[in-house]
Parts: sequence; C-alpha cells; structure tokens
Amino acid sequence: MTTDLARRIDQGTGREPAKIVLKGGRFFDLVTGELVTSDIAICGETIVGTCGSYTGRQEIDISGLTVVPGFIDTHLHIESSLVTPHEFDRCVLPYGVTTAICDPHEIANVLGTEGIRFFLESAERTIMDIRVQLSSCVPATHLETSGASLPIETLLPFRDHPKVIGLAEFMNFPGVIHKDPVCMAKLEAFQDGHIDGHAPLLRGLDLNGYLSARIRTDHECTSAEEALEKIRKGMHILVREGSVSKDLHALLPILTERLSPFLALCTDDRNPLDIAEEGHLDYMIREAIRNGVEPLAVYRAASISAARAFGLRDRGLVAPGWRADLVIIDSLESCRAAHVFSAGRRVDAALFATREAVAPVGLESVKAGRVAAADFGVPYREEETSVIGVLPGKIITEHRRYRLPADGNRTGLDLGRDIIKVAVIERHGINGNHANGFVQGFGLKKGAIASTVGHDSHNICVVGVNEDDMATAANRLGEIGGGFVVVEDGKVTGEIALPVAGLMSLEPYESVRDTLHHLRQAAFALGATLQEPFLQLAFLPLPVIPHLKISDRGMVDVDKFELIG
Amino acid sequence: MTTDLARRIDQGTGREPAKIVLKGGRFFDLVTGELVTSDIAICGETIVGTCGSYTGRQEIDISGLTVVPGFIDTHLHIESSLVTPHEFDRCVLPYGVTTAICDPHEIANVLGTEGIRFFLESAERTIMDIRVQLSSCVPATHLETSGASLPIETLLPFRDHPKVIGLAEFMNFPGVIHKDPVCMAKLEAFQDGHIDGHAPLLRGLDLNGYLSARIRTDHECTSAEEALEKIRKGMHILVREGSVSKDLHALLPILTERLSPFLALCTDDRNPLDIAEEGHLDYMIREAIRNGVEPLAVYRAASISAARAFGLRDRGLVAPGWRADLVIIDSLESCRAAHVFSAGRRVDAALFATREAVAPVGLESVKAGRVAAADFGVPYREEETSVIGVLPGKIITEHRRYRLPADGNRTGLDLGRDIIKVAVIERHGINGNHANGFVQGFGLKKGAIASTVGHDSHNICVVGVNEDDMATAANRLGEIGGGFVVVEDGKVTGEIALPVAGLMSLEPYESVRDTLHHLRQAAFALGATLQEPFLQLAFLPLPVIPHLKISDRGMVDVDKFELIG
Repeated sequence: MTTDLARRIDQGTGREPAKIVLKGGRFFDLVTGELVTSDIAICGETIVGTCGSYTGRQEIDISGLTVVPGFIDTHLHIESSLVTPHEFDRCVLPYGVTTAICDPHEIANVLGTEGIRFFLESAERTIMDIRVQLSSCVPATHLETSGASLPIETLLPFRDHPKVIGLAEFMNFPGVIHKDPVCMAKLEAFQDGHIDGHAPLLRGLDLNGYLSARIRTDHECTSAEEALEKIRKGMHILVREGSVSKDLHALLPILTERLSPFLALCTDDRNPLDIAEEGHLDYMIREAIRNGVEPLAVYRAASISAARAFGLRDRGLVAPGWRADLVIIDSLESCRAAHVFSAGRRVDAALFATREAVAPVGLESVKAGRVAAADFGVPYREEETSVIGVLPGKIITEHRRYRLPADGNRTGLDLGRDIIKVAVIERHGINGNHANGFVQGFGLKKGAIASTVGHDSHNICVVGVNEDDMATAANRLGEIGGGFVVVEDGKVTGEIALPVAGLMSLEPYESVRDTLHHLRQAAFALGATLQEPFLQLAFLPLPVIPHLKISDRGMVDVDKFELIG
Repeated sequence: MTTDLARRIDQGTGREPAKIVLKGGRFFDLVTGELVTSDIAICGETIVGTCGSYTGRQEIDISGLTVVPGFIDTHLHIESSLVTPHEFDRCVLPYGVTTAICDPHEIANVLGTEGIRFFLESAERTIMDIRVQLSSCVPATHLETSGASLPIETLLPFRDHPKVIGLAEFMNFPGVIHKDPVCMAKLEAFQDGHIDGHAPLLRGLDLNGYLSARIRTDHECTSAEEALEKIRKGMHILVREGSVSKDLHALLPILTERLSPFLALCTDDRNPLDIAEEGHLDYMIREAIRNGVEPLAVYRAASISAARAFGLRDRGLVAPGWRADLVIIDSLESCRAAHVFSAGRRVDAALFATREAVAPVGLESVKAGRVAAADFGVPYREEETSVIGVLPGKIITEHRRYRLPADGNRTGLDLGRDIIKVAVIERHGINGNHANGFVQGFGLKKGAIASTVGHDSHNICVVGVNEDDMATAANRLGEIGGGFVVVEDGKVTGEIALPVAGLMSLEPYESVRDTLHHLRQAAFALGATLQEPFLQLAFLPLPVIPHLKISDRGMVDVDKFELIG
C-alpha cells in the first residue's frame, strides 16, 4: 500500500507527477517578504513543492496571480453570521478563510453542552478547518439569566477533542483578578493548554495579574496604546474588525513588520451583509494595506503568526510539507480570491456538496410567555434615570443620566433627545424575568424592533417607541422560534427566523443576506439611524462590556459590576 | 490551600509582595525591540509582573543590568561536552542557557534505550530544562557497526514522555528521499509531532521531497545561500556554532530582524575548552552583534523564536505569565551573565547542590580485543589510494587520491604531504572489525592519538604515524573504559578517561577542562596542526557527512553512500 507519506516524497522530489500543480504564478514568501515565481505542487492535503518546476496530473494555470497562505480567523462567534457552521463554511471559505477558531459562546449560553457538541460535529464535516474553543464563561456573569451553565466538569470531556483548542475568551476578567472559585477551576484545568483572553481596557498591575493566569491572547484592544501595553506583556494581539466592534483603524500603528510575529486578525462578530458587501479577513488585509500597512506585516498576521499563536504548527506558509491551505489572489493589495484550496482541495460548489449534513439543534428555544404593552411600563420617579448611551459602531456604551418626563404615573420617552424604551425578557423558560429601561441613540421615531440574539444570555431584547409594537415584536419572536422582528403600527414589517437556538437560520446564507437587507430597510423606515440597529440591539445586554447595559434582571452598571436598584 | 495560580494572581496584581523582585534594571522587550526600565516580579516558576513597580519578599538590585529571556540551545549532543548531563547543567546554565534540546544520539549508538533512559532520568533532575529528542538514526547507516539499533518500536514507549520533543535530527536524508522502510516507519509515527532535520547541502527538488515528510528544522546550513533556500521552504534554521562546525559567520547575512521569527541558535557539539574560553550561546550572541547583527534579531533567535520552533509555548519572553527563565547581563553587546534564573530559581552552587544524582551507565562499554602494530598494515597497491582530506574546523572532508609509497609489501605513509594512517576498530563486542586507511591534514609527525568518541557509532578511532603507538593508544582506551589518548614513542603522554559509554567523564567539568587542555598540548607535541585534533578525529568515521569517511567496515564514499572495495 502506498501511504500518503510515500506519495508526498515521490511527488515532492518530482519522481512522480504531483496531484495538482499551480503553474505560471508566484507566491508571497512570508519568511523573506519576496514574491517568488514558482510552480506549486500539491499532494493530498499537503504542499510538496515550491521554488521549482513540476508536472502534475492536474495543472492549473494561475498566470498573473499570487498565492498566499490561507487566512486564519483567530476569534469569532460563527453564530453572529446568523447561519449554521455549514453555511458559514460555504459563505466565508471562498474569501480565503481556511481556518476559523470559533467560540460557540452564544449557542452554549442557550443550549449548554448540546450547543458545543453541535459545533464539534459541524467542525468535523466542514471543508474549512473549524476549531472550537471551549466557552469559558457561561453564564458570563451572575447579573443575567442564561439558558445553561457550563462549570468546569461539563467542559473537561471536550478538552482533548481533536477540534478543540483550549479555553475560549476568558471574559470574566474581574473573576480572574479576584480569584472567583468557578473561574479558578477552569483556569487550573487549562494551565497546560491555550487560554484565550478578553480584557477590554484592562491595564497596569491588574492586567499583570490576569496574565499571570497564563492567558495569552486578546482581541479587545481598541487603541494602539492599549495594544502596545498588552503586546509588550506577551499577549498575542488579535486585531478585530467585526460588524460592530471595528478596531482595525485604531490598531494600524501596531500593524508593523517588527510586531507581526505577535499579531493575528479576527472578526469576532460579523454579519452576512458585511461579508457580502465588504468581504471577511480579505477586507481587513485590503483595508490595512490601503492605509499604509506593509503587506508582509498583515499577511503574516493573517496566517503564520496566527497559526503560531494557537499552536497550529502545520499551516501558515506556502512551503513543502505544510498544509495546502492556499488563497490565490489577484494582487497583494486588492486581495480578491480567484481560487481557494483547503487542505489541497479546490474550493467550489461540488466540494461543498460532498459534506454530510448535521441535524439542527435548539429548535424550540424561545420559551418566554406572551407579553402585553403594560409589561413595558416604568413607574415615574423624579430623580434622574440611567439611560444607556449607544455609540455608533461600538459595543461599549455610555452611562448617561437624564430627567425623563412623566407619562401619567409612568416614566415617558423623550423622542426629542432620542431616548426610547428598551426591555429584556428571559426566554429560556427559567424565571420569566422582564426588565425595562431607557436607551439613547437608536433614532427610532415609531414602532419597535426585537431580537432573540442578545449577548451573552440571548434573552429577548426589544427597543421601541410604542409599547404595543414592543409587545407584538416580542411575541412574534416566540412564534417564529427566534430571530429579528420589526413592527410598525401593529404590523410586522420585517422579520427573519433564526430557529437554531434563536441564533441561526436554517436558510442558505444568500437568502439570509437578502432578508437582512430588507429587515434593515424596515428598521430604517422606523427612523433608525444606526448603521447596524440589530447588532447594536444585540449587544445592549452584554454586561462584560462597559459601561451601562441591561439584562433580564435589570439595568447593569458594568463599572461597579452590579444591578442598578 | 493556596494554589500556585492563586499566588501568581495575588502577586501579579501587587496585592501581595512577590516572591522575588528584580529592581532597578531594565529588560529587553523582544516584541517591540525596546529596552524597558521596570521591576520584574517572580512568583514560583513564573514571571508575574513587568512594566510596573513591585515590592518583594526578596528584592534583588540589578541596577545597570539588562534582563533577557533565557537562551535555548535548539540542537546539541550533550555527550560532546564530554561531561554528564548533570555536569553540563552546572557548566552551561550559568552562561544563560536555560533550555537545551538534546539528541542523545551518541550514547544511544553505544547503549541503545539504556542511554535514552539515562538522559531522561538526568533531564528530570537538572536545574536547566533539558528536553530530549528521540534519536532517529541509530545506527546512522548500514556502513558501520554501532552498539545498538533503535527501530521504531524501541522509540515509541518514549514518545509521550514529558521531556521528549519528537524525533531528533533525521540525518539519513537519502533514506527519506528513497523511502527506506525503516525511515518511513519512524517518520509515520511522528507525523503529528516534531521531526528535526539534518540535511547538509540538500537542495532543489530532493530537499522538497525531504520536507514533504514534514521535517521542519535544520542545523546543517553552511552557507547563507543554502539557508535562504531552506528558510524560504519553511524550515526553521538553527544557526550552529560548535567546536568543529562553525557556521555563524557564514550565516550572518540571514541573521536579520525580518527572518528572526524563523531562526534559532544551537551548538550541536561543543567541548568544555571552548565553553570555558569563549562561552556558549552567549558567545554566539556576542559574536553576531560584534559582526553587525541587530541585537533584536539574535536575541529573538536565542529565545522566543527558538521556543516557537519547538512548541515550547511557555517561554521566550520577559512577560507576566511566562516561565521565569531569565539572564541578567551587563549589556546586550557583551552578553555576560551576572545572574541567571531558571524557572524562577536563582542559579548558584547551592541550587545545583539540591539535585539528586543519577547513576552512571555504560561503564564497561569498550569491548574491543587488544591490537598489535601489525593490525594496522595496508597491503601495497600501485593505483591511487583514497585519502581523507581533513579541512580545519569542518566536519566535511574531501575525497583525495594519491599514489602512496611502498613500505615493503605494504603501503607507506607520506609525511611530506602530511598523509598518515587512520584506523577504526569496532568496540561494542559485536564483530571485531578493524579497518585501515589514510588521512591528510592532521600535521602529526610522530606518535598516535586515539578516541572512543567517533561519530556516530563511537568505535575506536586512531590516527598515527607509528603503528606501535597506534596499537598502544587503542589498547589504552580499553584499560580506561574509553576516552582520548595520546601516545608518543611508546608512552602515554596524555589521556582522559570517559567511562560513561566511552563518551563522558565522571569528573567535574572543571577538571575535564584542565585535563583536555593538557591533552591538546600533548597532541600538539606530536606536531598536530589542527586546532581541535580530537574533535576532528571523532568526526572522521561519520558517514552521513560528505565526502570521504572511514568506518569499522572500511573507507566510505559518502557521495555514493557505499564502502570503497
């Protein structure tokens, strides 16, 4: 029997024709920074020849094109693409993302280990190499009600799964610094593996304490100065450009050749509209170079440096013996993929068609009871009311205080100052919590929008001007198994069903994209001024991001890490 | 119970005094390339604080000094230091070498798995972190007689030992390229681990074939051009400066910041005299900088880049959460270690005294019968005779051909052209082989020198002018359990006993160093002109290095990889 190893040696030495040879192009050597004109020979999953001339059983002309190593998204929640891992694969791999290191944090908050198993099963069947980090903070905090809890004993059975890379973003950084026993148990169990970080604005000695727990990566830097402190303290910085959190431009100063061994790229949360309109990691690369970043620095960050940060020692260079994850682009600057190879397989519709399906999970995950307009009332109080100040394109919010008008014995809106209502309704069938509050910055003049995507516990969140419309929107989510809904004057004017745990669609990504486009138009028709009203809605409940948030238990002062009484 | 993790967090945040604080110095940040003035806090084995001010239970003033990460020797044979791993530890750690990735190839060729076990036991007790690669090519070739054979089934039981890092230098590169079944079995078994390379002068498609076996590191580059081809093909280049093979100066052109993520340093074979006179990796660093290399490039190669090449993810930076392997030097340029910390422990005599001893092995390893002058005779032949051409300071030899004079019915020497006799005598008690030949370049005018160190099979090798002296020298080796011997006019004028497998002394390194100094003088008294006559003798039998060598089976044409009839 001829083994894969024997075939690789025979084809690498040129004694036998290689399975596939890319001819007439050049590759970007991320070691020397040179563009090298050369054939590239592939055998099975592996590159077996560069810097030479080969004959192949299949020869592909790539004249005028440039080969770079496949891109690695080092931190993302696939759920944020609103499609299943299988559809994510089909949607994003053609942009050159051959490895995605995901944290199934969203589905884990709804379904617990059933959600992690769904991702691992999917990861074993996708073309793209999906790696799974074990969600470290479910529930993220005690300030909200999640659908599941994942103490250390539920994670340990997954630790040695071949698709698993350590512990996912350790976002409960106060828990680390203050040695919360639940956090300590998880950190102890992964001291010899990878522990991913998440420490926005953490600095100085507190950061040192956090790092002393052997946490090694961070994707939450929002300024170059913060990133420089963290990178100097040994963190590998994952530069993020998602649909809400967009840090690329702020971090351009650290995207240098010198720092490139310690950099990687990630999207964290990116929706299908942005993927369709801008691209994925290719967009980050393009945008970085357009802003003056050296191609060597950003292509290293996108592949070899990312691979090294996560111990993926088989990928990241175009070189013999390395995994044949290849992106064939028109030019380094524009980074448009003409062809993509994933472990030596040419990526096309036929390849995707070979994948085995995975049965969806969490189809009955929206268990909230029906609500009425009256449930959204807030008793009037004379003193100032805390109002969440939304910042366009950021998940950080401001804690603002206003005197709001009375509306009978209840607190009214202040449309003149763009202050409207926000509510979070527990939807996991646990306690039926319902919390109300106020938010500024959405621009809505009428109606309501609602979502079962609401980080991290993914309860129902609603913002609106009209309480009847808020109730209609929330109730409609129960009928469609979760998703996004827009209601105007009592009628549903836009919706998308996300029946997989209330987070992901069962539809192809193309129809999700089209539906989202319509949905956004429906939100704009209410007056919404934010570019991404649903994403900004979805992050309003996230109590690990400063400064003021709302959960099903009430308004949360994140700086004090407590509920506002 | 307070765990180490809890203590690290408490001390990193500064809530509790750190165990040790280095105060008043600065550290060389290998990420940004900057010298950063800062306290460094250490808790247990781990750095817990940088870029800040700390109080410590012990505070050490390092004013005026610079802290760099501990150096990693990425490829060496500790046996070549002629002392045991315990003495190597005591000798080399004070120079700042906190990690040594060794291949017990020499002792394995003499004792097989008993030798590997000896190294693993030693590695568990030394202060320095010694990692062991599993010798991949024992015997190195079929052209010689070694004391042991290590097929794959003998290596597998060691594969998952915590001190083991994959397969050691795969020097049988023709065996890889031609898919020798013994080689293939070993390569198959380590496809998911690290496979170290050894491929001198291998280039082009043959190199591609070799790399397609997923071999990832190489320490055999002797020119910048060769290194550039290999590094571009994804090999991590281990720049070597040993006692015989000295490649640092030839490789200076690749020691650049750009290439630094893909570089490391190693010594391969370095004797105690050079260590005492020049230093160890510190010498390489000093010498590189003196020759214009950027400090950032060479210090990265010495630590973080080396660690990454071998999957040692806990070390290589001065940063919180990283292993406290620290070298405190006078300046980046002179690189003289004032203090060394190994996993947070200050290195001094008291620390070394805490180590548990390891019982020596292979004390009766020289099993050759006694020889007489007549055994060294070579029948006269009229045609040209192959003569090994020794090149000073290189282990590569030249294949030269000369008409040698007759001495009765035997072939005589040609002292005028510096051609003398060489012999290799099997000493493992297997077949009693005895091969004779001729060598040019030693400078000897009389007497003989002999050694049981003779790579890779470590049979007895002798060079000499006088056959009686050659016999006396070889026989003396049997009496002292192996070592080096100098004989002049029938008398032993210098010797060192290496009773551990005929390779290592039982004495402290200081006395080994002093004895070697005397030994070298005794060889010079015979006329020896090579700076390292014993090391060059020891590499004469090495049939994996071009071009002409001698084993116990006869003269070996390495280019044809066959015995000369």
